[in-house]
Amino acid sequence: MELVTVGSVAFDAIETPFGKSDKIVGGAGTYISIASSFFKKKSGIVSVVGGDFPKDFLAMLDMRGIDQQGLQIKEDEKSFFWSGKYHNDMNTRDTLVTELNVLEKFDPVLPEEYKNPEFLMLGNLAPDVQLKVIEQCERKPQIIAMDTMNFWMDIAMDDLKKVLKKVDVLTINDEEARQLSGEYSLVKAAQEILRMGPEFLVIKKGEHGALLFNNENEVFFAPALPLEEVFDPTGAGDSFAGGFIGHLASTKDISFENMKRAVIVGSAMASFCVEQFGTERLQNVTQEDFDERVREFVNLTQFDISLV
Amino acid sequence: MELVTVGSVAFDAIETPFGKSDKIVGGAGTYISIASSFFKKKSGIVSVVGGDFPKDFLAMLDMRGIDQQGLQIKEDEKSFFWSGKYHNDMNTRDTLVTELNVLEKFDPVLPEEYKNPEFLMLGNLAPDVQLKVIEQCERKPQIIAMDTMNFWMDIAMDDLKKVLKKVDVLTINDEEARQLSGEYSLVKAAQEILRMGPEFLVIKKGEHGALLFNNENEVFFAPALPLEEVFDPTGAGDSFAGGFIGHLASTKDISFENMKRAVIVGSAMASFCVEQFGTERLQNVTQEDFDERVREFVNLTQFDISLV
Repeated sequence: MELVTVGSVAFDAIETPFGKSDKIVGGAGTYISIASSFFKKKSGIVSVVGGDFPKDFLAMLDMRGIDQQGLQIKEDEKSFFWSGKYHNDMNTRDTLVTELNVLEKFDPVLPEEYKNPEFLMLGNLAPDVQLKVIEQCERKPQIIAMDTMNFWMDIAMDDLKKVLKKVDVLTINDEEARQLSGEYSLVKAAQEILRMGPEFLVIKKGEHGALLFNNENEVFFAPALPLEEVFDPTGAGDSFAGGFIGHLASTKDISFENMKRAVIVGSAMASFCVEQFGTERLQNVTQEDFDERVREFVNLTQFDISLV
Repeated sequence: MELVTVGSVAFDAIETPFGKSDKIVGGAGTYISIASSFFKKKSGIVSVVGGDFPKDFLAMLDMRGIDQQGLQIKEDEKSFFWSGKYHNDMNTRDTLVTELNVLEKFDPVLPEEYKNPEFLMLGNLAPDVQLKVIEQCERKPQIIAMDTMNFWMDIAMDDLKKVLKKVDVLTINDEEARQLSGEYSLVKAAQEILRMGPEFLVIKKGEHGALLFNNENEVFFAPALPLEEVFDPTGAGDSFAGGFIGHLASTKDISFENMKRAVIVGSAMASFCVEQFGTERLQNVTQEDFDERVREFVNLTQFDISLV
């Protein structure tokens, strides 16, 4: 398998200053898979849903070439459910409901075909679950990337540090980078985190863009696209991760130069994601949309300066 | 005169998490002049100080080629004094003391040699003072750029709007852009502000970089350089403005492409400014330092992506 994604496939109910969604499909695994499937590589998803999960959504994933041998369906249980409400600034949110349901005892099992992934993307999940996936790989993938969140730093830091030793790329947000490292300066935080294992670190700053660091003191920055309206930020970070890993899996080039491109591609995917509720917009990105969006990033950031 | 700068030349006393300064020289006019003087063009400053202002500092400005025919010295009065304390995040600060002193009745007078500036930079001052300067120009300068702040939006919005009609470039921070436009989205705020007069708008977002808009829907973004430590943010915005206008005055090219370079140069100057208290670091920037810093911005932001 060229790309294996592990992450939640779930329901969300979202309230933003622009409106309120029904119970719609969300989850890190969902956003990552859909964003990465834009690159049409052989990919599979490892996750768990309940009997209440809509079959037509799974059919849509299938149509996008996302293999589901690793997706457990527990017919008698309910899917993971999260509900949240965004504040007016769209940067902060309150969690209203979290029902773990099937995720509570999620025991990921890699099907035979998934045991040698070229690229492995671990969406935000309990670190011990992420570790179990890595341990089922028969060979070290070219890149293991992982996302995590402050919640696991609060309650499972030891497990988290174990996983960090085994991954190549970590993606977290700025507050999480500060919490994980104990450093306020993101430059110092990055140095500290890169000592914990990963060779590359992406610090996501939401509307303020993303920083990419490697362990050779190189750094790259991509802004978020300035948008007139951010309709729903849910899934932006996961769409970023999906675009990032999808680009790497598609090019099979893990140089820092190509990681920079992956950050731009991830930022482009995130910019689509926030335009509508849920995965709606991501599902409809055409090659033309994508090229146009990347061109906007080029215009936004590229300049030509000659030094004396 | 190639460049005329109007702005406060004053005393600051600053407290940051890293330490406390004595009463040192600051002021928008000071930072702008020093940053722009890196480009060694014929420039002059219009401002007012008291008899307490150190003569050796004026001698230093003179050595940097900053003409002082427009600098009034009121021997029997005291210079403007501001004191502030930064919070731990270095993004917010409390003003402890503001003593207007000589600034209270500042009546700017352009010397003969200053009445046809090619470039005019209006640092943050009361809008009616900024207007008085514009009115003394015999011909429209190639570029009039101005900075302002929320304080004037609160107490002198009508005057501010009058000045805005007469300037080409406005530089303000993100909160000020929101207040001036009444729009939360910076894209919408920019559209609104560009309808008020300026052809170009720079929105400064501190550690989150700067956005440049023009009235043809073009937009450019420059990040702030990720620094291990920001020692003292005072003057960063004015150093940005100085680098920006200094580059324009030096190249005499006001195309959008060159404005992009000016934003990078401004960002480089701001990154020097915050490394030490006051103007210390800015005064010592060598051509080598500058080239190296610009190269860091190139490495930080430039990528090479080919579209399918």
